[in-house]
Amino acid sequence: MEHVTNNMRRRLLATASGAVAWAGLGGTAWADSQEPASQSNPQPVSTQKPLPPYAQWKDADSLIVHSANTIETQRAAVGAGGITPLDKLFIRNNVSPPAEAIMADPDAWTLEVKGVKNPRSFTLAELKTLGIASVAMVLQCSGNGRAYFPHKPSGTQWTTGAAGCVVFTGLPIKELLKAVGGAGDGAKFITGTGGEAIPAGIDPNTVMVERSVPLDVMDDAMLAWEINGEPLPLAHGGPLRLVVPGYTGVNSVKYIKQLALTQEMSPARIQQSSYRYSAVGEKPKPDDEVVWVMPPKSWIIDPLPDGKTPKAGRVMVTGVAMGGDSAPAKIEVSLDGGKKWHEAAFVGPDLGKYAWRTFALIAELPAGEHELVSRVTNAQGETQPEERRENNRGYNNNSWRDHGVKVKVA
Amino acid sequence: MEHVTNNMRRRLLATASGAVAWAGLGGTAWADSQEPASQSNPQPVSTQKPLPPYAQWKDADSLIVHSANTIETQRAAVGAGGITPLDKLFIRNNVSPPAEAIMADPDAWTLEVKGVKNPRSFTLAELKTLGIASVAMVLQCSGNGRAYFPHKPSGTQWTTGAAGCVVFTGLPIKELLKAVGGAGDGAKFITGTGGEAIPAGIDPNTVMVERSVPLDVMDDAMLAWEINGEPLPLAHGGPLRLVVPGYTGVNSVKYIKQLALTQEMSPARIQQSSYRYSAVGEKPKPDDEVVWVMPPKSWIIDPLPDGKTPKAGRVMVTGVAMGGDSAPAKIEVSLDGGKKWHEAAFVGPDLGKYAWRTFALIAELPAGEHELVSRVTNAQGETQPEERRENNRGYNNNSWRDHGVKVKVA
Repeated sequence: MEHVTNNMRRRLLATASGAVAWAGLGGTAWADSQEPASQSNPQPVSTQKPLPPYAQWKDADSLIVHSANTIETQRAAVGAGGITPLDKLFIRNNVSPPAEAIMADPDAWTLEVKGVKNPRSFTLAELKTLGIASVAMVLQCSGNGRAYFPHKPSGTQWTTGAAGCVVFTGLPIKELLKAVGGAGDGAKFITGTGGEAIPAGIDPNTVMVERSVPLDVMDDAMLAWEINGEPLPLAHGGPLRLVVPGYTGVNSVKYIKQLALTQEMSPARIQQSSYRYSAVGEKPKPDDEVVWVMPPKSWIIDPLPDGKTPKAGRVMVTGVAMGGDSAPAKIEVSLDGGKKWHEAAFVGPDLGKYAWRTFALIAELPAGEHELVSRVTNAQGETQPEERRENNRGYNNNSWRDHGVKVKVA
Repeated sequence: MEHVTNNMRRRLLATASGAVAWAGLGGTAWADSQEPASQSNPQPVSTQKPLPPYAQWKDADSLIVHSANTIETQRAAVGAGGITPLDKLFIRNNVSPPAEAIMADPDAWTLEVKGVKNPRSFTLAELKTLGIASVAMVLQCSGNGRAYFPHKPSGTQWTTGAAGCVVFTGLPIKELLKAVGGAGDGAKFITGTGGEAIPAGIDPNTVMVERSVPLDVMDDAMLAWEINGEPLPLAHGGPLRLVVPGYTGVNSVKYIKQLALTQEMSPARIQQSSYRYSAVGEKPKPDDEVVWVMPPKSWIIDPLPDGKTPKAGRVMVTGVAMGGDSAPAKIEVSLDGGKKWHEAAFVGPDLGKYAWRTFALIAELPAGEHELVSRVTNAQGETQPEERRENNRGYNNNSWRDHGVKVKVA
């Protein structure tokens, strides 16, 4: 981990020159870029790809730019503080974000609310007078850890960094429902629709970002307009985003323009066939399980193979641990690839059950190579498994073995 | 509050051009600047002063630059998320910070530990193997709110923004003491000495930043090397800072080079005569109370007189509330300058007793002018008072009346 002011100075120079480079391209060069195809080498490689225009303010030195819509936090860039600084937070858009113009007057953004007793639309300014709450939560792409699947699933080859822990502030869905007379009859899902433009002549279901989550997330889900104390930027779904704590990121619909309580799941492809646990090598079937809740997961953040080589003796091993949809309750570290486990200590403030916690273990390490792995157990007693859950598109890899590191000690 | 990406874009441009402007000055222009003298107008004014070189990475649009060593967060720049982003956090240095060179290799920074059974020195790399913990805490300059004292104390005219809430990570002092055999006989204070350069030919006691705090802070104090998950930057006391939760900022010694357990308080002027509650118009006496623990305090952050004018009807009133050295337990808001009080709700994660919490009240406000004030009560039952504690240098103003705002509703 490098010193922040050096990082920031380099960032300033990097993004300043990046901005110049982009200026000549009119900001459109990334507009139709797609996720890169599966790569033969799943390890992150140093990349000189510039940040896309809408993410120029990010800390390039802490990130891996896979594409304009897929930007990962470097494993070594996560600190022990618990909250991920916004300029280091990953980005993943399913399609290109709407034009920056939607951020000109955030309070004028309009949300349609349907499937309730009294359907109506609200401006964001109106929503802000109905209630307010905050939640600290892990935001994690469903495909985080995909790079470790041996069958090379298509999609971005995320390692550990399509995840962060942030504080969202906004209107609890349950408060919104009070203002519209409650749910309509037979409602089973909360279905959010993103504000991305749908090109003419295309079946909207094939591209629109519309996701359904079970109605029982209502107690904790919210419509967020702030992240880490800042107005929610376009890069993270501003002006308004549905956030569903405990669920993978795709379920937290960005630029939300419609929130409907529905009896059925969305007909959109992103609901019906993408983001399903399908068998490896097979097309998704209608009854394949939907990717919703995150499983417990942890990984080491220091020391790392490409970081400073620790000296033999006492070495502080640190990492992050999340419980999924319940709190991280116990964290263990192994220094020998999983043969023997040691309970580590949680570090940092307890930010609630949906947040991750950093952890630390002081280890005595002799010179040589050591395989450091970690596994978390959540409050429901579910332990991070050794093996990943195999699935065709490589979702929710939480294998502790896949996330281990081999570190040399001098 | 403006949109973050616009802010950040402007910041990028502002600091990029600022960097160019500074380049020609060799970074020395601010080096001998002092706190500005008392001003006749205590309100913050829009300033075009550039950020000093060591703070170029800060978000200029969220700050008020009083001088190179005194930079305040704008009242409107505080969000509801609880943690203050680092680029918006205030800066206050008692003397100019050491050269940036001390950050070249943070792990090589050396700390002398004295007044213990086995005195010795440690590198930061060694300290990092002794233990680790985090604490979320309000960091607040002793003079925050000085601008509201009617007798115009000398010193920076801080309004509300010499305060933020951050997460420090480092080595608990109690863990350090285990490694050195415990406190020496008769120790009553923890005395930290800063690493600022002392000019030759000057009595060190007149300029050195050396502060003593009672030994009983030991349970929560730490030597911090990280802030908000980032390596501690020079601007905030990196590579290593003593942090004393619940105490005003001056007690959290930056660039700490020596930590001693002492029987007496430091002989430094900053301990013996500055930072004392002296009578207005009088010189400090040896038995004047030392400025240590922070009292409970809160203030409104939205709406504000110079912000967007709210429309008559439901208006969300938000603010921040700290308990001092115990948790904020109750927060009340008055819409009529303190005649009638309404209990407001805390918003955001509970980050522990030393953190602040944001709060919110949905108010029905008719058109016209309203005097909005807030008062917090901490877990010890201490309530933020209507009147400030008068003292010559204007320390620890927590008067709820002084911190109120008059807001027009259309």
